[in-house]
Amino acid sequence: MNEAADVRAKCPLVHCITNYVTVNDVANAILAIGASPIMSDEARDVEDIVSISQALVINIGTLNERTVESMLLAGRKANSLGVPVILDPVGAGASRYRCEVTDRLLREVRFTVIRGNLSEMSYIAGLGGGTKGVDSSLTEKDRDPAAVAAAVSSSFSAVAAITGRVDTVCYGSRVARISSGCAEMGSITGTGCMLSGVIGAFVGASDDAFRAAAAAIAAMGASGEAAFAAAGARGNGSFHMALIDALSHVDDGFIAEHGKLVYAEA
Amino acid sequence: MNEAADVRAKCPLVHCITNYVTVNDVANAILAIGASPIMSDEARDVEDIVSISQALVINIGTLNERTVESMLLAGRKANSLGVPVILDPVGAGASRYRCEVTDRLLREVRFTVIRGNLSEMSYIAGLGGGTKGVDSSLTEKDRDPAAVAAAVSSSFSAVAAITGRVDTVCYGSRVARISSGCAEMGSITGTGCMLSGVIGAFVGASDDAFRAAAAAIAAMGASGEAAFAAAGARGNGSFHMALIDALSHVDDGFIAEHGKLVYAEA
Amino acid sequence: MNEAADVRAKCPLVHCITNYVTVNDVANAILAIGASPIMSDEARDVEDIVSISQALVINIGTLNERTVESMLLAGRKANSLGVPVILDPVGAGASRYRCEVTDRLLREVRFTVIRGNLSEMSYIAGLGGGTKGVDSSLTEKDRDPAAVAAAVSSSFSAVAAITGRVDTVCYGSRVARISSGCAEMGSITGTGCMLSGVIGAFVGASDDAFRAAAAAIAAMGASGEAAFAAAGARGNGSFHMALIDALSHVDDGFIAEHGKLVYAEA
Repeated sequence: MNEAADVRAKCPLVHCITNYVTVNDVANAILAIGASPIMSDEARDVEDIVSISQALVINIGTLNERTVESMLLAGRKANSLGVPVILDPVGAGASRYRCEVTDRLLREVRFTVIRGNLSEMSYIAGLGGGTKGVDSSLTEKDRDPAAVAAAVSSSFSAVAAITGRVDTVCYGSRVARISSGCAEMGSITGTGCMLSGVIGAFVGASDDAFRAAAAAIAAMGASGEAAFAAAGARGNGSFHMALIDALSHVDDGFIAEHGKLVYAEA
Repeated sequence: MNEAADVRAKCPLVHCITNYVTVNDVANAILAIGASPIMSDEARDVEDIVSISQALVINIGTLNERTVESMLLAGRKANSLGVPVILDPVGAGASRYRCEVTDRLLREVRFTVIRGNLSEMSYIAGLGGGTKGVDSSLTEKDRDPAAVAAAVSSSFSAVAAITGRVDTVCYGSRVARISSGCAEMGSITGTGCMLSGVIGAFVGASDDAFRAAAAAIAAMGASGEAAFAAAGARGNGSFHMALIDALSHVDDGFIAEHGKLVYAEA
Repeated sequence: MNEAADVRAKCPLVHCITNYVTVNDVANAILAIGASPIMSDEARDVEDIVSISQALVINIGTLNERTVESMLLAGRKANSLGVPVILDPVGAGASRYRCEVTDRLLREVRFTVIRGNLSEMSYIAGLGGGTKGVDSSLTEKDRDPAAVAAAVSSSFSAVAAITGRVDTVCYGSRVARISSGCAEMGSITGTGCMLSGVIGAFVGASDDAFRAAAAAIAAMGASGEAAFAAAGARGNGSFHMALIDALSHVDDGFIAEHGKLVYAEA
């Protein structure tokens, strides 16, 4: 296991078309993990930028008609160049427009990794979503994450990652479960968006997107747990800062020891 | 007094159309107080999003023609559904466009709460504004906040809140004064925007918008004071973090003890 | 040397048209140094806003067609009023669109200060850029920063500042070198953007843009070094917070003692 070392050694450039709520944290998370972020969402700019990048992360958190066109342009260009593309379908299922855009992105761009919460991924799996805004309204009591991830992976030939109490990563018959992390990570905005950025960094430095995504999720979960233990009692602001601190210390030993990552067959 | 407990119990979804400068802090403030933020400003998205929300916060800090249309669509939809709407007229009076947009919003949307500094609220009251950018250029020596708040409340049948050295909340004959908070809160960007988001959370969890707005302002003032006492000497970065920490610990006992909130008749 | 004191005494209003990745940090850096930020990028708003401002900072980090028009409008208006304009050509050289926009801005707006990394400034000097996204791909082994800065200063009659391991500021025959700062500042996003905002604050409070820019760069370098010493070992999140803390304590004595600023003839 050397996924984290590869990120720090190769320092992949990660092109993000992402929401303006958490974009600063996404950039800082990518830097903390040892990669290099670049944000660009102008249609006339994105094809050039993705051409010099090792991964593209598309996050629809604050989508608009202008940036959706840029997502499509960048995604198709990435596909033509073999640059891996990560989708974070924030709020898919919560509004008709988010559903339409998610559908269109999935039709017109091939994604290497699709990561969302159980509601978002259930929408993508065609099982009906139902979200409370950008938070999942479903739990594993409502629906089996492993089945949803398998359906998404199969439909889109992508690594499918569902994050929640336990995280599930599926790619064909390969499955990983990650049980690090803590519920309090939902009390600071952007942990999901940061994770998608970090997945971009890991996938951009690897030739095994499944293992890279699993390692990235384990890295974020372990960082969140460490940060909460260190600073959670002081409050959300300190926890937020400690999470970036923890990400900047991630290495493969830390992931192996604290990531709570288990590989299994489906 | 159980306004804060209601926020944590009901966890209202607060739809924000807000500026990109402070949007991350607004989201984190809403989360810290126990509610759930969702940011969406695309015209094709906002009506669906506001339909699942318990409050809408409109902040014109970095308005543009596209998002102004979204503010109007979301505001009218909120009105039709009975979802309370909060206006933060950032910089009203500082430019012709901000004045025009403020006027149009006030003509086409009914606001439950209007919160601004003395310059912005003076503009809305028709008394002439005069702002230094986004900071008030007026003090209570220039103009009586209670009279300005009463004028705004009367003109727009809304709860009017003017924040400054002492904060004034007015709704018809009901008046509240809040003297918690400290001047140093102006040295970190977004304390006003965060407050408007927190007001959205409190109003979204209450059926008395006047009391909810007053409690939210008291919560923010007491949090700012506590944060400055804890971390202000270390500098603005630490103070900023401590403010989010303090918000995440707010409860009704804290507001009662430190909010310095007094109700009075007008 | 009283540049920092002038900022705190005059509290210039700094109008920023800047990227949404680091905009919050830019605003907080400007506040920490004692000035007042205002962000506005709507074409119908920017001319009014720049008219009440003491400096305009244009940063193309997340440029788009709408905001480029606003940059041009604001820049021309600033020129007509004598308001100093600072350019941060983020990623110039990295894409055709960023090159085109940089060229157009330099044709249509007179800049008081142009600040970038060695790649960006090499592009502007007509020497060919080559950037790795938003980071410089060139070092002083590839190209002499003093020669590049002199070329930019001469071509555009502007103060030219190149930041890197050692920073070079050039205005005609006047040259300053600043060796404070540390490489780790590149591991948190936005230190360059924050610096451009801080330069806006110093230039807006001074009638000597060369000395103001040099002092601002020395202030940021010394703050970065102090912050890394205080908190770098804890991680990137703590370092980021400590940088804002340090900026909020900057005064001229601190710059003189820790800024490592040397004036020289070209």
